[in-house]
Amino acid sequence: LDYQHVQVPFEITLWIMLASLAKIGFHLYNKLPSVVPESCLLIFVGLIMGGIIYGLNDRSPPVMDSDIFFLYLLPPIVLDAGYFMPSRPFFENIGTILLYAVVGTIWNVFGIGFSLYGICQVKAFRLQDVSLLHNLLFGSLIAAVDPVAVLAVFEEIHVNEKLHILVFGESLLNDAVTVVLYKLFRSFCEMPTIKSMDVFAGVGKFFVVGLGGVLVGLSFGFTAAFTTRFTKDIRVIEPLFVFLYSYLSYLTAEMFHLSGIVAIISCAMGMKRYVEANISLKSHTTVKYFMKMWSSVSDTLIFIFLGVSTIGENHEWNWPYICFTVIFCLIWRALGVLVLTFFVNRFHVNTITSKDQFIIAYGGLRGAICFSLVFLLPDFHRKKLFIAATTVVILFTVFIQGMTIRPLVDLLAVKRKRESAPTVGEQIHIRFLDHLLAGIEDISGHWGQYYWKDKLEYFNSKYLQKILLREYDQPKSSIVLLYEKLERKHAIELAQAGQLGHGPAHPSFLCSAFLCSSSDRTVRTDQKLEDTLNPDVLDNMQEILARNLYRIRRTGPAYNRHTLPGDSEPTEQAKEILILRHKNL
Amino acid sequence: LDYQHVQVPFEITLWIMLASLAKIGFHLYNKLPSVVPESCLLIFVGLIMGGIIYGLNDRSPPVMDSDIFFLYLLPPIVLDAGYFMPSRPFFENIGTILLYAVVGTIWNVFGIGFSLYGICQVKAFRLQDVSLLHNLLFGSLIAAVDPVAVLAVFEEIHVNEKLHILVFGESLLNDAVTVVLYKLFRSFCEMPTIKSMDVFAGVGKFFVVGLGGVLVGLSFGFTAAFTTRFTKDIRVIEPLFVFLYSYLSYLTAEMFHLSGIVAIISCAMGMKRYVEANISLKSHTTVKYFMKMWSSVSDTLIFIFLGVSTIGENHEWNWPYICFTVIFCLIWRALGVLVLTFFVNRFHVNTITSKDQFIIAYGGLRGAICFSLVFLLPDFHRKKLFIAATTVVILFTVFIQGMTIRPLVDLLAVKRKRESAPTVGEQIHIRFLDHLLAGIEDISGHWGQYYWKDKLEYFNSKYLQKILLREYDQPKSSIVLLYEKLERKHAIELAQAGQLGHGPAHPSFLCSAFLCSSSDRTVRTDQKLEDTLNPDVLDNMQEILARNLYRIRRTGPAYNRHTLPGDSEPTEQAKEILILRHKNL
Repeated sequence: LDYQHVQVPFEITLWIMLASLAKIGFHLYNKLPSVVPESCLLIFVGLIMGGIIYGLNDRSPPVMDSDIFFLYLLPPIVLDAGYFMPSRPFFENIGTILLYAVVGTIWNVFGIGFSLYGICQVKAFRLQDVSLLHNLLFGSLIAAVDPVAVLAVFEEIHVNEKLHILVFGESLLNDAVTVVLYKLFRSFCEMPTIKSMDVFAGVGKFFVVGLGGVLVGLSFGFTAAFTTRFTKDIRVIEPLFVFLYSYLSYLTAEMFHLSGIVAIISCAMGMKRYVEANISLKSHTTVKYFMKMWSSVSDTLIFIFLGVSTIGENHEWNWPYICFTVIFCLIWRALGVLVLTFFVNRFHVNTITSKDQFIIAYGGLRGAICFSLVFLLPDFHRKKLFIAATTVVILFTVFIQGMTIRPLVDLLAVKRKRESAPTVGEQIHIRFLDHLLAGIEDISGHWGQYYWKDKLEYFNSKYLQKILLREYDQPKSSIVLLYEKLERKHAIELAQAGQLGHGPAHPSFLCSAFLCSSSDRTVRTDQKLEDTLNPDVLDNMQEILARNLYRIRRTGPAYNRHTLPGDSEPTEQAKEILILRHKNL
Repeated sequence: LDYQHVQVPFEITLWIMLASLAKIGFHLYNKLPSVVPESCLLIFVGLIMGGIIYGLNDRSPPVMDSDIFFLYLLPPIVLDAGYFMPSRPFFENIGTILLYAVVGTIWNVFGIGFSLYGICQVKAFRLQDVSLLHNLLFGSLIAAVDPVAVLAVFEEIHVNEKLHILVFGESLLNDAVTVVLYKLFRSFCEMPTIKSMDVFAGVGKFFVVGLGGVLVGLSFGFTAAFTTRFTKDIRVIEPLFVFLYSYLSYLTAEMFHLSGIVAIISCAMGMKRYVEANISLKSHTTVKYFMKMWSSVSDTLIFIFLGVSTIGENHEWNWPYICFTVIFCLIWRALGVLVLTFFVNRFHVNTITSKDQFIIAYGGLRGAICFSLVFLLPDFHRKKLFIAATTVVILFTVFIQGMTIRPLVDLLAVKRKRESAPTVGEQIHIRFLDHLLAGIEDISGHWGQYYWKDKLEYFNSKYLQKILLREYDQPKSSIVLLYEKLERKHAIELAQAGQLGHGPAHPSFLCSAFLCSSSDRTVRTDQKLEDTLNPDVLDNMQEILARNLYRIRRTGPAYNRHTLPGDSEPTEQAKEILILRHKNL
């Protein structure tokens, strides 16, 4: 037996296997996941495992390594989040999201930090040795809402798109603020004196860390898109580039102390559109599927490790400090949301309702990022107290808030996500309104979001597409792409139902029949027309015809995709043909 | 700048990126890959990079770590090979493959070892200090044909299936022999005296290592299949299990000193059938795509590392030893193939032609496995000579043989692979003949391959399928599955060409028309029939009808899938309809 030799890959594989099997186990009992969020169950499994390890070894189980978390577990989840980010609601609400993420987080950090410092002044609690700076440092790590935890809970409760993007966008973008404040306070802790210069430098760093992340991400994203222009002959390594470039963007940003999360999100959002157009359909399925798989495994591992790491002797228990931490986290977040939303609602027609505000405040879950950051703190005599408080806040938010948010959403009757995808008609209308609003904004001289969107779209089609897309001379509009996707899906459904139209004769036959029913001459001129028209125009006509026929089929009375032979309608048609044939004979 | 922090993942990602970009680079110039195999180009890139590193640092570039090779780079390639192994030709030729892999490899090891010992006795060459045991040890690592190198070259030359599986199967299965002989000789080198007992134990080990590998692989494969029974609700982690279980089988086998390659191949071949039936279509696409992607990257990295590792000061040059090694490798392999094929041909009707024999002998390429094994040798004073000889043999076989094998295949007019997939008709006939031959073998009392195949199939459908498949009550025959696959492919093609049959009316309409053209009463009795027949029989009928219609479409004169509206035939049909309608009016 030679275990040493294979230990590292063997143990990693076993951990992943355990996580996947745990996931399968929960889903075998359908009732469990509908009551308790998966994240709670996974932490629970972790707690049990940690207890077993603790009981057997009689020492604290290994704590989740912060390096492993930030370098290997977090990137897949954030990449998945960025790649599947619904870009329309995100950019429509970018102002509100940034306000919550930047101002809201700063508000929370200082609010929690100062009020905990106030608690520390109470002599009965015996906490006078915790300085203001340490409290602010603790505030900076405990204030940030965690994207992994938010995603795990909000994916299951299906609130409306705007509410979802507000909470989730905030949890992603506050990373830049958290990184800056955490590092600032940590360096202040180690400095003998703090100059006012340092504080100003800290403020400047916000912009460097955030915008730097965006720049790094976008440059890697566009490079990825450019690379996939040349992969036509080796389709099989196309998905690789999506993963490699996004990971590189994350690592590069981390290397330069920029926000890795912001970088990987901009990379994913920047490349998505071009990569999708360049790579093959199968490659794209693989990219999507693998991203989901990877993030799902990372997510599972994070929650299990979180559970395992909780057990042990790393904690110093102090009732008042811990209780007040939980209370202040709740109060300051609620206050922040109320105040910020008051200002947001003054400038928007489409306001955030008080129900939505409650869910935003209540959905501020903390998770593994806080946990990793608290272990990264420099050693000082109250570190174990901070670890204990962080653990309690995470468990409280994930268990109590995570488990009650679904009943609350039901109780408050918060507007849910619409179930169906937008139809082709809706898409056309949205597109039309966008153009209209851009025109209105242009005339009125107001540089609003539609104006910028139009300019960006122009820049995109004029320059970016020509550089980044393989077939830049024929960029298909999103509607044509949607139509193709629907057609493909429909074709697969037909094939699976064994009802595929046989032979290529039918569409053209239908099409010709359609034309000739209006006038006989059309068929005859049709041939001539094709001889004179150039192929581009013809392709366009075919597309329009196909699209119209598709819609007729969808809306007309003949819409019965899944009828089996012998159902009423088809036999009627058959009879009609029969009569025709008889008369002919 | 904090490079230390992200160094490990950053450098790994960069290496993979470099490998992928090199691959893209080759394919940009279409002429290059058609003349020079990709493996040669990659080694060449590696040589250049090694030269640059050597020139800049003035010391040998890092050698490919054997642990990294065996634990991380080799498994994906072997998994891919095993998963996509064409099982029918493999099992039809398993006897011949095993003969080549076991007897042939032993023949080569001892042949090369003893003849090199003979060369060492020539005083002029100054090699008398190389003992017989060391020569045999060297023979054991240089004799084995390398699956990675064989695959890289043979995938590009498209020889017939039987020839391909003979060379490729041998290269995979000789791993068990190589492992045993290499470890045996290495332990002999370290022992003071060798007893006859040890030799017998070595012979016994063959079976343990090979059959143990098969057992480990199959047990993990069946566990994987069993696990995928329960993934219906979380489709997204299905592909993971395929990778995790196969990797675990490899690691477990390596842990117990069994043959990891044999284990992972049996695991992949064992699970493939059941996993494919259990997991969703998209999961399966992801599995296939990712496997190909992964193996392709591993393959690229191996050849680049091989090139990099060649440069440096690890070599001791001795002209006679190195030249005779190359010559003996060629001679003993050629002799071995000739002698073994002589015996094989006496027992087979479908003999191996002399052209095939030449390609089998000539296709015995050496690669990264030899290279890793020679670096794993215990230190002794002639190790650098062995490294030099191994490097020369690898470069000779990959460059000279790899580049000339394609012209030779053309020159000899070796039978090529058939381009088209077997039709449904062919499949039915093959299946029919299998049953017939199984019957004949049963009557004649001969326990041949068809008899065993039939028994295995019976065992599979009676027990295995019930345990391992989710819907074990409706196991679809491979023909129905093939048909569904063809239909799906066809549907996607139609959708992509914008020619999807519109509405569900057509198949049933065609079907009814088909029936009613023979007699009018059929349509009327059709309805009644459906009322009386039970749904199972109806489903079956529909399947048969759909299958027949499909074949008519494929073989009939109307077979023009990609005709656009306006082509000759469809307009003719449209005219026909027009005439009918006119008469009707």
